[in-house]
Amino acid sequence: MSDIGITIKKAEDFSEWYTQVIIKSELADYAPIKGCMVFREHSYAIWEKIQEIFNQKIKLTGHKNVYFPMFIPESFLKKEAAHFAGFVPEVAWVTVGGDTPLEERLAVRPTSETIMYAMYAKWIRSWRDLPIKLNQWCNIVRWETSATKLFLRTREFLWQEGHTAHATKEEADREVMEILGTYKDLMEDYLAIPVLTGKKTEKEKFKGALYTTTLEAMMPDGKALQMGTSHNLGQNFSKVFDIKFIGEDEKDHYVWQTSWGISTRLIGALAMVHGDDKGLVLPPKIAPIQVVIIPITYKNADREVILEKARKTFEELRNKGIVVTLDDRVEYTPGWKFNEWELKGVPIRIEIGPRDVKQKQITLARRDTSKRIAIRNEEIANAVTELLEEIQSNLFNKAKKALDDNITTVKTYSEFKETLKEKGGFVRACWCANSTCEEKIKEETGATIRLIPFTKERVFSKCVYCGEEAGEVVYFARAY
Amino acid sequence: MSDIGITIKKAEDFSEWYTQVIIKSELADYAPIKGCMVFREHSYAIWEKIQEIFNQKIKLTGHKNVYFPMFIPESFLKKEAAHFAGFVPEVAWVTVGGDTPLEERLAVRPTSETIMYAMYAKWIRSWRDLPIKLNQWCNIVRWETSATKLFLRTREFLWQEGHTAHATKEEADREVMEILGTYKDLMEDYLAIPVLTGKKTEKEKFKGALYTTTLEAMMPDGKALQMGTSHNLGQNFSKVFDIKFIGEDEKDHYVWQTSWGISTRLIGALAMVHGDDKGLVLPPKIAPIQVVIIPITYKNADREVILEKARKTFEELRNKGIVVTLDDRVEYTPGWKFNEWELKGVPIRIEIGPRDVKQKQITLARRDTSKRIAIRNEEIANAVTELLEEIQSNLFNKAKKALDDNITTVKTYSEFKETLKEKGGFVRACWCANSTCEEKIKEETGATIRLIPFTKERVFSKCVYCGEEAGEVVYFARAY
Repeated sequence: MSDIGITIKKAEDFSEWYTQVIIKSELADYAPIKGCMVFREHSYAIWEKIQEIFNQKIKLTGHKNVYFPMFIPESFLKKEAAHFAGFVPEVAWVTVGGDTPLEERLAVRPTSETIMYAMYAKWIRSWRDLPIKLNQWCNIVRWETSATKLFLRTREFLWQEGHTAHATKEEADREVMEILGTYKDLMEDYLAIPVLTGKKTEKEKFKGALYTTTLEAMMPDGKALQMGTSHNLGQNFSKVFDIKFIGEDEKDHYVWQTSWGISTRLIGALAMVHGDDKGLVLPPKIAPIQVVIIPITYKNADREVILEKARKTFEELRNKGIVVTLDDRVEYTPGWKFNEWELKGVPIRIEIGPRDVKQKQITLARRDTSKRIAIRNEEIANAVTELLEEIQSNLFNKAKKALDDNITTVKTYSEFKETLKEKGGFVRACWCANSTCEEKIKEETGATIRLIPFTKERVFSKCVYCGEEAGEVVYFARAY
Repeated sequence: MSDIGITIKKAEDFSEWYTQVIIKSELADYAPIKGCMVFREHSYAIWEKIQEIFNQKIKLTGHKNVYFPMFIPESFLKKEAAHFAGFVPEVAWVTVGGDTPLEERLAVRPTSETIMYAMYAKWIRSWRDLPIKLNQWCNIVRWETSATKLFLRTREFLWQEGHTAHATKEEADREVMEILGTYKDLMEDYLAIPVLTGKKTEKEKFKGALYTTTLEAMMPDGKALQMGTSHNLGQNFSKVFDIKFIGEDEKDHYVWQTSWGISTRLIGALAMVHGDDKGLVLPPKIAPIQVVIIPITYKNADREVILEKARKTFEELRNKGIVVTLDDRVEYTPGWKFNEWELKGVPIRIEIGPRDVKQKQITLARRDTSKRIAIRNEEIANAVTELLEEIQSNLFNKAKKALDDNITTVKTYSEFKETLKEKGGFVRACWCANSTCEEKIKEETGATIRLIPFTKERVFSKCVYCGEEAGEVVYFARAY
């Protein structure tokens, strides 16, 4: 079993453990192209769940899905100067089509603001055309040069990007926060990953935005992971793309815009936060398979009776709306199957053996705690439903405790450095709001300001770096 | 209204009519990049319906969705010689990443056989790993040089591509036909577009395949449209990618493979086949909105009573599972709305005006026939359900009649040319099975062999071109 199962403990070598979990659970694999990965069926099924949940939420609030071209002429990308400067180091360029060199090279989209807004300029005429609330699910390319990390840092990944246009700044502000709330629901209620939310500093904001809001989670190795961002773009893009509307006042106005995104890195976060030494542990609400039934048939036992009971249980759970699989493959042993489904993180395993048949019971094994419980036949559907809910909240609560335990408040720079070195996590400190201090801290410790909380927290010391008067309490961390 | 509505008749200038329908119904728009298009919310919603229907069907038969990298190293593409030769003229090449020229240029996928099969070689070890049945929904790039035609010929489009690996040829044959059947269901039962199915000739088959099966529809201008293909790849790719498995006989074998795809061109077919001089006409099963309710409120009428009735009808239909929209925008007149929803092809319009309130009735207008019917309030939900079914079958029957009327059997080459010139459509003729005749006919008339029927049809004449003994009855047509 040892070459199939995870051979390293999560607490021992987190990075190696992570890679083994991803590959051996068959979430993903390295592609034979540097920096690229394959999303195998197990991770893609999780991505489809994320799409389903998020689509349902944003469609209810009037957003529509679309698809824009992947190629962006260099001249478009250049229109917003900060945006271009931010993205150009990581752009993959198409320079040849068939046998012919292109007159203007084309960026493979690193994000789609510029190509989408060129069309918005054409479509928007009057206040009647507003708001425009579009979203697309697509592949994105950023030519990373640092080491590949499956789901977290690859040259191609999948995401959704929302792009809206509004008549007023206030409406755009509301959109930014509405989406941030939708993201938080998805992350906390479905992925069972608690997040901190707040604003990015000027230095860390999206290149081209007025301001950026963010959701940040804490990974078990003490590094933060940016889970999603929602930007108010102000009128920065509408001015360079000339996106104007005639208002009810019959005058011309530039629109106010937002953009926002989450990506397949969420799947990496799921693995990191909930996984254990046996592999993935998936929250029931996002698991592509919630329950697996494994019949334990021995040579001399009454094989048919066991299979019959397994099939009956399968039907009963399926009719209850539970996503269940019956693993009746004959070419593998029960033990092999136990390991495989544990690796893949299925929340509940059901075992049905001779003893279960005899005692009119069914044995449930929880993936999160490894506890096994015997349930009377007639209670199985309700017991599974309740247990799925319990696993979902248990995973969230554990992760929430880990997050809370990993926020350390410091007053001095030596405490700051000590905390980062010994423990990692979020370091809560006061800051003078000067970007020089922010840069120095990053240079010296590798930590960045992950967010400024929305609700101003009470200043409790001088600036942690320069000792001058502080205006803000902020959350620092090293991050992926 | 004239600049908003379609200004040309379908029968007058089909090509111009088509472009106007696509743009004015807001299905799509030209992108500001040569050869590329934007899939606007109306077409993307149709694409989502197609995805939903097809996903459900193929998941039931054990297929799983995945996502592979978009970039394919040139050396991979070159491994299967016929495949490379077939695709290389249309490849867009990435040659620079960030500031650095790449050592090996990367193709933006024109199709994914080569990148996927490099991984299959790694994943497949034993007969226990078979079959592999994977599918991906993604964007595809083919650097077309001929004129752009929205949905039908653009440099980037969306599709699904299925790729399976099997232990035996027979199993691969069955897969090819199972998928062809699934495609036919989708096209005929949902899109209401009847298709002919059969095999491609050696000349027309997919480059790298053993054989190709196809579904062909007839457009109103007499040109055929290839709606989808399903290929048996034989062992052509497994041999060059070294995809071997140890069989139950404990010996090494190369796998047998299939690949198959449908694309966003189906949306173009929908517009062409069912559209009319007022715009799109969408079959109810694929329409993103099945029913639109338009309250007819006049200044002095009892506005609130009408709106109340409209809302009640909306709820009733929604509870019945019908996808319904209530268009209560005050900034547009009912007449304006009628035109807009007709353009967009919504199958049923419901009008609720003062007269309807007074007479306890609701007026339904069918998009396909323009007929209006008054329905008693309490019968509305059933009437709408039945009418949606009737519209669905009416559209299919009309299209089926058009297809049947456009198959002409000919014995001589002069009849052949005459038919193509006067009428177009499918020309059914006998063929000697010699590719020289096939090529000559293409050169002289522009028509290709669209398919060889699966069930051999009785030969009724000599070869339509050379006059030699004929072995096959085949279907020719000019095609998109």
